[in-house]
Amino acid sequence: MNILYDEHIDGELQSFEKSDILADLQQSVPSLTLLHREEDLRPFECDGLAAYRVLPMLVALPETLEQVQTLLKRCHALGVPVVTRGAGTGLSGGALPLERGVLLVMSRFKKILSIDPDARLARLQPGVRNLAISEAAAPYGLYYAPDPSSQIACSIGGNVAENAGGVHCLKYGLTVHNVMRVDIITIEGECMTLGSEALDAPGFDLLALMNGSEGMLGVVTEITVKLLPKPETAKVLMASFDDVEKAGRAVGDIIAAGIIPGGLEMMDKLAIQAAEDFVKAGYPVEAEAILLCELDGVEADVDDDCQTVRQVLEKAGATDIKLARDEAERAKFWAGRKNAFPAVGRMSPDYYCMDGTIPRRELPRVLKGIAALSQESGLPVANVFHAGDGNMHPLILFDANREGELALAEEVGGKILELCVAAGGSITGEHGVGREKINQMCSQFQADEISVFHALKAAFDPDRLLNPGKNIPTLARCAEFGAMHVHNNELPHPELPRF
Amino acid sequence: MNILYDEHIDGELQSFEKSDILADLQQSVPSLTLLHREEDLRPFECDGLAAYRVLPMLVALPETLEQVQTLLKRCHALGVPVVTRGAGTGLSGGALPLERGVLLVMSRFKKILSIDPDARLARLQPGVRNLAISEAAAPYGLYYAPDPSSQIACSIGGNVAENAGGVHCLKYGLTVHNVMRVDIITIEGECMTLGSEALDAPGFDLLALMNGSEGMLGVVTEITVKLLPKPETAKVLMASFDDVEKAGRAVGDIIAAGIIPGGLEMMDKLAIQAAEDFVKAGYPVEAEAILLCELDGVEADVDDDCQTVRQVLEKAGATDIKLARDEAERAKFWAGRKNAFPAVGRMSPDYYCMDGTIPRRELPRVLKGIAALSQESGLPVANVFHAGDGNMHPLILFDANREGELALAEEVGGKILELCVAAGGSITGEHGVGREKINQMCSQFQADEISVFHALKAAFDPDRLLNPGKNIPTLARCAEFGAMHVHNNELPHPELPRF
Repeated sequence: MNILYDEHIDGELQSFEKSDILADLQQSVPSLTLLHREEDLRPFECDGLAAYRVLPMLVALPETLEQVQTLLKRCHALGVPVVTRGAGTGLSGGALPLERGVLLVMSRFKKILSIDPDARLARLQPGVRNLAISEAAAPYGLYYAPDPSSQIACSIGGNVAENAGGVHCLKYGLTVHNVMRVDIITIEGECMTLGSEALDAPGFDLLALMNGSEGMLGVVTEITVKLLPKPETAKVLMASFDDVEKAGRAVGDIIAAGIIPGGLEMMDKLAIQAAEDFVKAGYPVEAEAILLCELDGVEADVDDDCQTVRQVLEKAGATDIKLARDEAERAKFWAGRKNAFPAVGRMSPDYYCMDGTIPRRELPRVLKGIAALSQESGLPVANVFHAGDGNMHPLILFDANREGELALAEEVGGKILELCVAAGGSITGEHGVGREKINQMCSQFQADEISVFHALKAAFDPDRLLNPGKNIPTLARCAEFGAMHVHNNELPHPELPRF
Repeated sequence: MNILYDEHIDGELQSFEKSDILADLQQSVPSLTLLHREEDLRPFECDGLAAYRVLPMLVALPETLEQVQTLLKRCHALGVPVVTRGAGTGLSGGALPLERGVLLVMSRFKKILSIDPDARLARLQPGVRNLAISEAAAPYGLYYAPDPSSQIACSIGGNVAENAGGVHCLKYGLTVHNVMRVDIITIEGECMTLGSEALDAPGFDLLALMNGSEGMLGVVTEITVKLLPKPETAKVLMASFDDVEKAGRAVGDIIAAGIIPGGLEMMDKLAIQAAEDFVKAGYPVEAEAILLCELDGVEADVDDDCQTVRQVLEKAGATDIKLARDEAERAKFWAGRKNAFPAVGRMSPDYYCMDGTIPRRELPRVLKGIAALSQESGLPVANVFHAGDGNMHPLILFDANREGELALAEEVGGKILELCVAAGGSITGEHGVGREKINQMCSQFQADEISVFHALKAAFDPDRLLNPGKNIPTLARCAEFGAMHVHNNELPHPELPRF
């Protein structure tokens, strides 16, 4: 997967010399830190999807809005593409650099500008780490709800770009549901404020559009997020099952019983064993699947809900149900889940993490389909995922050193995503499309819809200089990939440019 | 306010004859009900904003998707603008017809396609009434949360178009937060599905974009909404204040105490007296303001919260606090609030209802500003509003038969909205922009931002045939209105077309 060149992107670039660009930027933004030597560029060649690596032409590390603005204006004038990067923890290659582009790294914008406990809002620079928001809000009894696994390291700007989720998003929503306002700078250097601290904004919903846009519409320079009061208490139930599909059905039953858990996670046998081996979480290694169900809120309320969930789980056929006795045991149960990815990583030289979503009721059927794909291919698949919102994370185990196994893993991954789409779901829940799933976008959408995406992109960035080659495939790419949904067997709008 | 002609719209139309259009549509969609005689058109000349009236050229009342699709394709081919209308209860003139356009009335699409109690979803045709959704979901213990005052009559398609709110949107969100999926047909007749029943969709967030787009991007033909479990109990506290600003401050104090009420409404003296006179709600007619605070959830939880809110209200200087003793008294307290608009209507020949939002903390200051504007103009202003989310509804009382009073009321209304914008708020909370607030959009946004709106519109409807003249002002209009936010005293992008 050493993709160094994308003919669909670089084929369109104006011709320029790296040395000319460097000289121009050094002259127009003299105070800006610019890296250009190979050894300095190397640390930036990939994000969390390390299988994809590209050395950027230049890395810019601005510290002021003026530097960002001038840099973008110059890149616009020179026709140089710009990829924006936050903490670089993304799992879909959204911040993968371009060989002939500037990597704009926003990590120096890490100030918490204000915490307003009365309005329950935090104003943040984009480089602020996700967990740092909750830490700063803690003295007021508040926290920031979306909690991707990478929350120690990932930045809020990247969270907006990928519309990040986490264990708690079943109850508290994705990033888009927790952001009130973002400030952006467009590729032309214009500053815009999208959303406000007030309830609703007139006109089209540009704020929602920005969440999950993967740096293709503008560079986010400030974010205002909602803070929530910390729940009075949280308890966690662990249920064991002798059958994965039964566990999948229990997930729907809990929701149907009128409960919205703070978190509702599922792990299958392979994941349970890996996690138990790694962190000694107290998991039942003989079980085919476990569900972890966290209930949070006011004490009396949580106790009621625990009762209800216990009954639902029993009826669904759980072979054992444990309530974490205390905070220490609750932490241990979660430690297993939170370390499941690295735990699985210890079992196999390589693994490939998928991120499809499906309607909850399809869980049993899709789990069965994944098991069949695993058996067919001979590659083990571990399932660890946000069951409550149908956000699956199958981990495909393989050994890249074995001839053909990487390609096989990618093929199985693609088939799993197609299974999700066929079940009425989508190819990404919280990791984004990035470079990784650009081909699967052709399975998810029709050419018409992809054309609308391109037109929206053009509304902000008509020259397609911001993060080209990510998120939205070109129609030409889809045609090559062979998976374009077409009406009447032909591409609609044949007159449209094939960008 | 008898606006019969908008030169910015009609100036652009291709020339056509009504009789030719009628003949063409009758031939291309023979099964379609088409109204064309003046007496048949008359009932459709306005929506809930009855001060604005325009007789449409033709009214179409389709019953099948194929009819909608063919109608749109023909209108597209003929260059005829199309305004889509739901139940016609909107308060901003979003469904105001065009003298030279087709009014597409979706009221015959009123099937509830399915209720899925396990997934807690309802699939609906756009003409289904808001309240009918909750009625259909009631047997499963579920309901649909957004509840605009017009919920008996308004339709879910219109709710999506205007991103409708209601008393409960503080806790449960606006329409956009409760919609999972919409199907649309574009002006070119293409069918698209935006969103899904799964957690998140890749690509740009077209689903969010559709909410509040006021029929300018496509015609909504099906909607999937979330259903919520009915809270176990609901209690309401009524607090009296001898000072409006104190009441305004108490609103922020309640939220800051960690409570999110199911509803938090405020009424000032004029509104209290009008409502009491009309429905005998048991309101304190001597008070300067009251707050109605509803708490819903599990019994124990609600009792706890009632205690907390009572303490906060006492500390904030409430002169009296009453807990509704039973369901009957609770209903009476709410009856006063829900009938406040017609109640105020009995006090004055005419009133003009505004719909600005502001950050909660600005409530005391903006209420003071409104009082000053009322005194200065001599026009009484009653305040009845969703205080919890800072969504104000000042009612300006006037007599249209008195020379100049209508113009004065409009002027005061405009100044109130400018006050909201200056306080960091917006010109609409839940009623939309429509025709009514199109000039105020020029105060809310910069020309750059308006240009982006136009470009987004063009992504779906490049010929600007869907609901032209609403929601997004032309730059030319803003320049005339004189309120365009400009950089360096000149319009940016002078090279852009002045559509």
